[in-house]
Amino acid sequence: MAITLYDLAGAEDDRRFSPYCWRVKMALKHKGLAFDTVPWRYAEKDAIAFSGSQTVPVLVDGGRAVYDSWAIATYLEEAYPSRPALFEGGEAQALGLFFSHWTARSVHVPLLRAIVLDIFGHLHEKDRAYFRESREKRFGMPLEQAGGEPKKWLAEVRGALEPVRPVLVQNQFVSGKGPGFADYILFGAFQWARSISPLRLLEPDDPVYAWRERMLDLWDGYARRAKGYPVWA
Amino acid sequence: MAITLYDLAGAEDDRRFSPYCWRVKMALKHKGLAFDTVPWRYAEKDAIAFSGSQTVPVLVDGGRAVYDSWAIATYLEEAYPSRPALFEGGEAQALGLFFSHWTARSVHVPLLRAIVLDIFGHLHEKDRAYFRESREKRFGMPLEQAGGEPKKWLAEVRGALEPVRPVLVQNQFVSGKGPGFADYILFGAFQWARSISPLRLLEPDDPVYAWRERMLDLWDGYARRAKGYPVWA
Repeated sequence: MAITLYDLAGAEDDRRFSPYCWRVKMALKHKGLAFDTVPWRYAEKDAIAFSGSQTVPVLVDGGRAVYDSWAIATYLEEAYPSRPALFEGGEAQALGLFFSHWTARSVHVPLLRAIVLDIFGHLHEKDRAYFRESREKRFGMPLEQAGGEPKKWLAEVRGALEPVRPVLVQNQFVSGKGPGFADYILFGAFQWARSISPLRLLEPDDPVYAWRERMLDLWDGYARRAKGYPVWA
Repeated sequence: MAITLYDLAGAEDDRRFSPYCWRVKMALKHKGLAFDTVPWRYAEKDAIAFSGSQTVPVLVDGGRAVYDSWAIATYLEEAYPSRPALFEGGEAQALGLFFSHWTARSVHVPLLRAIVLDIFGHLHEKDRAYFRESREKRFGMPLEQAGGEPKKWLAEVRGALEPVRPVLVQNQFVSGKGPGFADYILFGAFQWARSISPLRLLEPDDPVYAWRERMLDLWDGYARRAKGYPVWA
């Protein structure tokens, strides 16, 4: 049975910008599982209502629907134990859960402020009103104000990455010698940005930059081939 | 051959307040290794000069000296592979290194500001001038100013712990089902504070509070029996 992923898309069907969907796509590649993606927009809540979720990623594997990127990773580990592991064991998984919450809080929050206007500019027309309204409510201010200082928020993103740097000086990947789900968690943030924003997030001499290159190279450049801006043009 | 740990002490020999030494003591207990500790003060740099380090923890195992808590944990894993593991594998170790840097940056920095005057108040007389001078240089302000707003910095500590909470709701320990070095990393911060400060760091309904209780209970209350303030008096 084929695996299908509902994957957030922008104006064009092939502009896929959800950091959480990127986690899942990288996890599926890691496990060597074939899958199809369905472009999905915020306006299409009906299309995924069957799953119980209001948002993507939603993974359908045979008759089973799973949503939430963490739950999907856990599901894939359990359903495909003979495939390459996303977590080396229970301790790596527990620390991975911490890493996921850290990324959401310390990286995604400032990164969203740095790229929110770029996201808005790449949305499908039918998503624009919803996105503006929901995000302005969340920010408590107009979108143009929330996204008005990208350089300030970019500096915050770069500062937040500080504890990752010594790890990536010592190891090739966040997960050590090879990539694991923790790498896909952090990489999702960069792929999110790259898919809709020309902002240069990292300087080439940053160890995180070299790591991102390694991530972009995985599986014959799977993530690099996705529609987006070059990381350093 | 006996293992000896040079362990930072306050005015009294048995007031041991270094968060990094606490990591090592917990790691030694975890591995079931017998060890002696030597109370050490900042003024006694000569006593550990043989190790090449200017500060503690310094571990001496037979003829070998190892310093830096992370290097000591790595050494213990390699030297005593048949003892209970501090890291479940390479991925847990890589993520543990991230966790160590995160703790130093996000937890220790604000926590130091919250308790620095309490530290100063518990120092051995011969350490006071050194501590004041070196910390005032680091802070760029008088100690009394740096430590003048403990409640503000306490709020920062509590906020910084946000990504740990969902992990400790789902699991008993940061490392999952059982305690590992990541737990000792974070616990070191709490034991640091408790050894010299009456500040209530956590509310009893905080999942981190329940975890700290579990940590204090390990090995028949090893850490709880150490000289310090009660966590909630």
